[in-house]
Amino acid sequence: MRISYTIDEARSALRELRADGRSVALVPTMGALHEGHLSLIRLAREAADAVVVSLFVNPTQFGPTEDFSAYPRTMEQDLAACEAEGVSLLFAPDAARMYAPDHSTYVTPESLDQVLCGASRPGHFRGVLTVVAKLFNIVQPDVAVFGEKDAQQLRLIERMVRDLDIPVQILRGPIVREADGLAISSRNRYLSSEERAEAVCLHQALESAQAAFRGGEQHVETLKGLMMNRISEAPHAELDYAEIVDDATLQPVRRIEVPALAAIAVRFSRARLIDNMVLVPD
Amino acid sequence: MRISYTIDEARSALRELRADGRSVALVPTMGALHEGHLSLIRLAREAADAVVVSLFVNPTQFGPTEDFSAYPRTMEQDLAACEAEGVSLLFAPDAARMYAPDHSTYVTPESLDQVLCGASRPGHFRGVLTVVAKLFNIVQPDVAVFGEKDAQQLRLIERMVRDLDIPVQILRGPIVREADGLAISSRNRYLSSEERAEAVCLHQALESAQAAFRGGEQHVETLKGLMMNRISEAPHAELDYAEIVDDATLQPVRRIEVPALAAIAVRFSRARLIDNMVLVPD
Repeated sequence: MRISYTIDEARSALRELRADGRSVALVPTMGALHEGHLSLIRLAREAADAVVVSLFVNPTQFGPTEDFSAYPRTMEQDLAACEAEGVSLLFAPDAARMYAPDHSTYVTPESLDQVLCGASRPGHFRGVLTVVAKLFNIVQPDVAVFGEKDAQQLRLIERMVRDLDIPVQILRGPIVREADGLAISSRNRYLSSEERAEAVCLHQALESAQAAFRGGEQHVETLKGLMMNRISEAPHAELDYAEIVDDATLQPVRRIEVPALAAIAVRFSRARLIDNMVLVPD
Repeated sequence: MRISYTIDEARSALRELRADGRSVALVPTMGALHEGHLSLIRLAREAADAVVVSLFVNPTQFGPTEDFSAYPRTMEQDLAACEAEGVSLLFAPDAARMYAPDHSTYVTPESLDQVLCGASRPGHFRGVLTVVAKLFNIVQPDVAVFGEKDAQQLRLIERMVRDLDIPVQILRGPIVREADGLAISSRNRYLSSEERAEAVCLHQALESAQAAFRGGEQHVETLKGLMMNRISEAPHAELDYAEIVDDATLQPVRRIEVPALAAIAVRFSRARLIDNMVLVPD
């Protein structure tokens, strides 16, 4: 496995990787790799000849009060994990190499971003789209893999790829869960053991909505009520949002008549956790 | 010469163009081609093996009161001109093929855009950067050529290429002028014969500033005064701006100690004309 710390090194490594016409899949990450990331790397390996993993804690997607400095950095383990998964190139630039001091061009969503996490994290998706556009321009992958856990991010990236005609195919990686249903996340390590036990409430809330939906309940207010009730049973959980929206437009719906995205964000003391499920009518 | 009206056709034509490893230069235009454009095409031909010209009157860079509908469309002459200049591919999509009805991702400048034309045309450069990013993603040129007449656009595109790591080299094409000094523009055809005679005031204003600067005058207010005086002598010319700014940052300067951009915009009845000159201290 090669490791590149600068854009020029990465481009030169990629020229070699592609020299014999091999296709390239990119898995963008912020490091702190866990089973969720590894599942994306495995999808990437099936989809292309060579896998590139980027590891970059992107400052522009963190708000001023968010956990940029505290975000877990586990470079050595990440490196070993990528090596073990057969990654061809690890691209791990530092922020000074990714953003000039007078950086001033952003890729900005003007739709899909005012709801869910976008409402709680102003500017977050502008940062995400900007860095993903940069990574696409640096790596020029044939395929890129993103996890379904970040549902809104995934839809915004798919929209960006369509709107800006970026020549890359986006693959969606299913959510990977712990045995009790908690979606695996780098931020789970922020949880105390008590919070960890309660954190299963996100998945259980989604499951209760899904069970009612499968039982015939189509009214979003009723389903949202079920989700919020389950979250309220966790004493340390502070609800950020529990929403059910049109899966394509992320706009509010009253009844589920087309595929809908049920999405939850909950704050514990240090961790903000998200989870989601798509509800598809018969 | 091939002509593509859709993105898919263009991509397929480009695969053939590049099949034997040929490099590609892109000249983005809004059509209504004139000697200025042809000079860019000739630069492109020197810089790469194959030249692609895009011809697209981009709706997102026109304000609601601007001349999008009236913008000159001269497809047949443009086609003949491209053919005569040895262009390999003309990409001429229509707006419905370039923007989905729910298009919502924009490339947005957050600096360099609040002055000069950006101040007079809010949203203009967001439209320009978005369509240029799209064209770069569709054509994936090795080189792209832009005219120096659109000085602020050129600097914003160079900044975008740097900030988003777009793998393209930008070439600057010098301003092409009529015999009397008027910068050639598609919008010159909007001028009455009286206005056409007066329109030389832009170039003459720049020349008077340049002459004083070469004579030792470094004070921007004095040089701006010279430019404004010359414009005020043209009875049908309504000054939009006459500015001298830092050539790199486009920020105001009081004295010219680093390269400065002298830029003018003037409205005649139907035409808004721009021109500029770079003043470089010894």
